[in-house]
Parts: sequence; C-alpha cells; structure tokens
Amino acid sequence: MPATILKGTIVSAPSLGKLDITEKGYLIAEEGRIKGVFPVLPEQYAGAPVEDYGDALILQSLADLHLHAPQYPMLGMGMDLPLLDWLNAYTFPTEARFADPDYARDIYRRLARELMENGTTRVCMFSSLHREATLILMEELERAGVTGYVGKVNMDRNGIPALQEETEESKRETLLWLEACQDFQHVKPILTPRFTPSCTDGLMDFLGKLAAERGLPVQSHLSENTGEIQWVKELHPDCSQYWETYAKYGLWNDRTLMAHCVWSDERERAAMRAAGVTVVHCADSNQNICSGVAPVRRMLDEGLKVALGSDIAGGDHLNMFDVVAASVRASKARRMQDGWETDFLTVAEGWYLGTSAGAAFFGGRPGFAPGNSLHAIVLDDGDLPQPHPLTPQERLERCVYRRQKNALRAVWSSGRLLFSREK
Amino acid sequence: MPATILKGTIVSAPSLGKLDITEKGYLIAEEGRIKGVFPVLPEQYAGAPVEDYGDALILQSLADLHLHAPQYPMLGMGMDLPLLDWLNAYTFPTEARFADPDYARDIYRRLARELMENGTTRVCMFSSLHREATLILMEELERAGVTGYVGKVNMDRNGIPALQEETEESKRETLLWLEACQDFQHVKPILTPRFTPSCTDGLMDFLGKLAAERGLPVQSHLSENTGEIQWVKELHPDCSQYWETYAKYGLWNDRTLMAHCVWSDERERAAMRAAGVTVVHCADSNQNICSGVAPVRRMLDEGLKVALGSDIAGGDHLNMFDVVAASVRASKARRMQDGWETDFLTVAEGWYLGTSAGAAFFGGRPGFAPGNSLHAIVLDDGDLPQPHPLTPQERLERCVYRRQKNALRAVWSSGRLLFSREK
Repeated sequence: MPATILKGTIVSAPSLGKLDITEKGYLIAEEGRIKGVFPVLPEQYAGAPVEDYGDALILQSLADLHLHAPQYPMLGMGMDLPLLDWLNAYTFPTEARFADPDYARDIYRRLARELMENGTTRVCMFSSLHREATLILMEELERAGVTGYVGKVNMDRNGIPALQEETEESKRETLLWLEACQDFQHVKPILTPRFTPSCTDGLMDFLGKLAAERGLPVQSHLSENTGEIQWVKELHPDCSQYWETYAKYGLWNDRTLMAHCVWSDERERAAMRAAGVTVVHCADSNQNICSGVAPVRRMLDEGLKVALGSDIAGGDHLNMFDVVAASVRASKARRMQDGWETDFLTVAEGWYLGTSAGAAFFGGRPGFAPGNSLHAIVLDDGDLPQPHPLTPQERLERCVYRRQKNALRAVWSSGRLLFSREK
Repeated sequence: MPATILKGTIVSAPSLGKLDITEKGYLIAEEGRIKGVFPVLPEQYAGAPVEDYGDALILQSLADLHLHAPQYPMLGMGMDLPLLDWLNAYTFPTEARFADPDYARDIYRRLARELMENGTTRVCMFSSLHREATLILMEELERAGVTGYVGKVNMDRNGIPALQEETEESKRETLLWLEACQDFQHVKPILTPRFTPSCTDGLMDFLGKLAAERGLPVQSHLSENTGEIQWVKELHPDCSQYWETYAKYGLWNDRTLMAHCVWSDERERAAMRAAGVTVVHCADSNQNICSGVAPVRRMLDEGLKVALGSDIAGGDHLNMFDVVAASVRASKARRMQDGWETDFLTVAEGWYLGTSAGAAFFGGRPGFAPGNSLHAIVLDDGDLPQPHPLTPQERLERCVYRRQKNALRAVWSSGRLLFSREK
C-alpha cells in the first residue's frame, strides 16, 4: 500500500487554543496512520504520488460526539415548544417511526451522506430503541465511511407506548444487537441508557455490568435542565447528585460521554474530572430549548475533558463548522451572563474542541500527531473575496464562520479517501 | 403589462406572531403591485398565464435593515478581538480599500448577487465614506435588483488617517453624492452619520438640516455597548442620553433607523417610540462582539418598531434566514439572562421582524397586503426528509433554521422576477 501524501496549507490543533501551521506542507500517512507533517517532502518519499491541493487548507476532520440519528428528519422544527411538549409532539413520534426498516434505511443513508459531505468523520450517536434500525444505521455509516460509536437506546420507563421497552425486552434486545454488530469494522457499539428518568434501576444495573464485562463505552445525558435534575432527585432519593445515578451502576468512567452538563456544579464537575468522563457540549441545543449555557470555560480551566456535539434535533446544525461557531457564540453568551468576567472561547479553542478533543475519545492524540488514524478534510476557500492577504489562521476562522458552497474538496476518514471534488 | 400570478403554498406575516396561509393559492400582482392572495383564481384572470410552483412555499422576501457593505470581504474574521482592536485591525483598513473603484466594483457586484440569491430584496446599507464607491454600490444593487437605501458614511473625527474626512469635505462630498444618485430608480440615498463619536457637531448639524430640507431618511448606531455610551457622554456633556445627541440635530424621527439599541433603557426606548424611530436588532453582531443582548421582547411589548439587520461584518451571516434564526436564538439567551422571565421570540415572530417589519420602513403594509410592491421568494423544500406530513408553518420553521441547498426557486423584487431556477 503506497503512502498517502497530501500537500497544501496544513493547519491542526495540537492543544487548546494553539494552531500548528505548515504552508506548502506535506501530510503523510502509511497504511492509514499518520507519519507526520513535513515542510519539505522527506527523501524516502521522493517520486511517490502526491495529492497536491495547491493553496487549499488541509484540516483535521470533525468529530460529533452527541447526536440523535432518528431525529434527523425533524431537524429545525418544533423549537418554539417547551421541552416536554417538544418531546411528545416531535421527538418520540419521530423516533417511533424507526420501527420501519425501510424508513430507517432511507433516512440513515441520507444522514450518513450529509455527515460525510460536511467533513464529520467521527461520531457518537444515539439511535432509537429499535435493534434493526440501529444495525441499519451502523451499516449506512460504515458504507459512507463515517466512523465511531452507535448506541441502541435503552428506555424502559417514562416513554410513550410506541416508544418504550419492557425491562427484559430491553436487555434481550441489547444482547442481540451486540451480537449482530460484531462484524462492523469502523462503527462500534456504545451502551446508551437514554437518561436516568428513562431507565429502571434494574436496567441500569444490567447495563453497568455489561459495560464492565465487555469493556464497552457508555453515553448518556446529564444535568441538562433544572426540572430534569429535580426529577432525577425524586427518582433517586439515595443520590445527592444526578451523576451518582450513573456512578452507582458502573456507568461512570473514562469511557463515558455525558451530554450537556449545563448545570453541573463544582462537585459534579470534580466527579467528572476524577473519573475521566468526557463532557459533550451542545451549544445550539442548550440555547434552542432554553436549557441554559454550560460553563465550558470553567470546565476547561478545571481540566475536564470537553468535546462538542450537534445534538440534532435539539440542535439545529448538523454541520460541525456551525457547531464550532455555536460553541464560540455560546461562550460569549456565558461571558455576558457572567457579567463579562469569564473569557469566551477563541475560534482556535472551539476548533480544538470540535476536532482534537473529540478525536481523543477514539484514542487519537491532538492534531495530526504521528500514529493517529488519518482523518482529514481539504477546504478550498479561494472563491471568497479578500480584504487583504489572509493568514492560514484567518482562513480557518472564516471557514468556521462562513459556510462556503462547494468548498470541501476532499474528505479522508480512517485513512480512506471518501470524497473528492475537482476545483 | 399582464398580471403576475404566482401559484403555490402562500405564507405571509400579517402581524407579529401570526401567519396567513393559503395552500394552492394565487398571489396576484399588476404593474408590480399586489392585488391580493386568493384561494381560487378570480374570474377576471381566467386564461392569464400562471407561474405554477406546485407545492413550493411562496413567502415574502427579506429585508436587511443594517449592514456595512464594505465589510463584506472580512465577513467571518477577527471576531476574537475586542471591539476597538477589531475596528483598527480589520474594519477601518478594509473600508479604506474602497478608495479604489475597481476593487469596489468587484466586491459590490458579488455582494449584490449574494443578497439577491439569498432572497434579500430590500436593504438599508452603510457604504464607506467614498463617494465614488458609494455610487458603484448603488449601481450594482440596482443592476442586481436589490432595492432600498444606501448611505455614504460621514465621519470627520476619531477615524484613522486613511478613513476620515475633513468636515467641509464631508459636507461637499455628501452634496455631490446626492446630486449624482438622483437617477437611480430602486436604490435611494439615506444620510449616514457613522455614529456620534465619528461626527463633529458641525457635521451633525449640517446633516440634520439636510435631512429636513430634502426629506431624507437617516441611519446610524445607538447604545451598542457600555463603553461607547460612556464615550458619547463625555463628548456631549449637555445630553443626558445618547439618543439626544441625534435628536438635538434633527436626526431623530420616523424616518430614522438606529442599529443595536442593546442598552437603551426605558427612557431612551420611550423616546424612540414617541419619535417613531425604528430599532434595527442585530443579534449575531451583538453576540459576536459581546455587546450584550438587546431587550427585543420588551421593545415589542412597548410598541416600538423593530426590524432586523445582518450587520455584516460584526454579524457573520449575510443570509437573512440565518439572521431570523439568530434573533430567535438571541431572545432565548435574553430569556435565560432574565431568569426565564421574558418570553422568547417564536419563529413566526422572528419571521415577521425579518419581512413585514423591515418592509414597513419602505412603506409596505404587513404581509402580502394589496397595494404593496411585489417582493416575494419561492422556496422548494421537497428534498428534505419528512418525519410526518408537514404543515406550512412547520415548513417555514424548517426553512428558517435549515439552510437548504438550491432551495430558492425564484425571487421577485419590486414586481420584477430577478432570478428563477427550475426544480
């Protein structure tokens, strides 16, 4: 297998807020693994074929660590409704349709394609509770080249009749699903209790033991809004905080993703840091549903792991460029809410969260580090007007803020070229 | 001239928060003026040619009441900088380039095209201080079919050497500009003192008298951030509030637009209501530059006139669909900031602000009222997945939130078809 050599303006995020830039540089991978970024082509590759993208930006691809695949058809709707009405009028009926495999196939094929076309090559997704549709989702992601984790949702209480399982059924279906998804190469299972109010103690206990036995990662929701927190307190009077309802069943460790964490206080954040839990910040969703604004700056200062999620369809942007911009914007809302006392996220910081911080959950080291699986996109911004000759930093910033028609020229995922378009 | 008859799913905003819907309806105009919306084709039009858009949405086009045309090339850049650094590093140098007519021609042609392609047919724009470039901007808007007002900016203090006028020069250039723009049919002049700190008393006095003599509208900035308000207080110790620095020179009446008004308190808002001044709310910009969140709900409750502006390049979205969504989102940030005590804007309310409320500044009545100039867009959202059969309201909401590639099928501006694309 020959080396993959990409030439262009290479920009990566090696640490929070920092950008590594190599103009006219070479990003080299062998067998899908990055060898490094070089300002000059190393001698051993002389004569090897080079994908020369000219002046185009070569960037890390994006990682979306929280989204609800079956909510894709309702993207951008119902957001004038309060959370519970929104769930009942839109979310639950929409998810219930995924009992139909043909519907699931059609929707998930489109979703996988749109993710790939937006440069999102890594995901952690909630499916619905349906085993078959979950497997279809995994197939379609695998086919499109999108990598990551997908979870069949577990929910055995507080749903609606069309969208709820019996406890034993939920356990059995989970085991059957795990059995059936062993053959996927790039898409792996993640255990997915919807959130504490949706799962009985018996089901949580089962999932925690299963996670430990099989070394499976876990994803769920935490402290999204104050009403939910109060509800969890009533359901679990033995737990003084929401996170403990996961911890007590073994669903709280360094392979755990918790979406939102808008209202996580110092003690809950300390528990996340201690366990190595990753917070998935979903800025658009939190604003759309008026949940609040997560204290991301504080989380970062405290050393928590924070990545980004589109959280469709509470969030209304599937494109992670928009999600990065939304995280920057939300940090400014938080700054204003805090009386201008907390710093906002810079674009470079938002970019790190949307790329390197997300990749870390899959074992990637920050930036284009040697040994990382090759996940990269090529962006051509040459059609936009120039106020002055732009630095690569300025070009990246503009790409984050400004959607550019047909700007994406290529997408590489796990070493494979998924997509390529001529200039 | 034959009647223009558009057939489709007609949705318009007759009042704040209300939508008028006519499925399979006919929107009819004669000589560029709307006759009405009809569920059945009136007999007198039998046999007349009908533009049948099938199930597509026929909507009012959008009005952008505050944007800085010469900042278009820097859209989406520099927003990690504090306001004054941003002005000095980006805004002023970028605007200074418009001394070059060729550069102006290239940039303004692209801007006019992008506005039209986004369905924005009415604008109130700041140009730069350059007379020639301002005329080029007006020519290019006129050519593209975008209608509205453009202002040569006046600024005779606190600029940078490359972007500031002498007082007499500013007056003279303004008169020459007004002379030269008499022949435009759809683009008219608006007096544009940049903001109080940029204009000496002598210049403000001149502009106020000119506005009165010639019946010209006025646009400027008001109470965007607290530092600016303090600065104005120092410059005008005789005025107890910012707005009075405009009012005392006759720049404060029902043909006045004031952008931002983030920090306008009850007294300043009462002065706006009494004079009939229109507030232009620029949600993205206010968040990007951390100015604050304008109390739009309160303004509306108090009966103020409020329209929307993209405020590029403080704002990062030129597309008014995004600006409508941003206004809804900002109202949710404000709600959270107010301890969940103020209501957010619904999508229907945001849509009214971006269409009917903006059109009002040009004399339009709300919605597709008979007598209005025909400003309409046709949107085809048929390619998106459906969670269930959607109502026209749901389709509108999704159009606001979700960018759809190639969804725009036609744009009508001031009775003329500017743009049309086959399905």
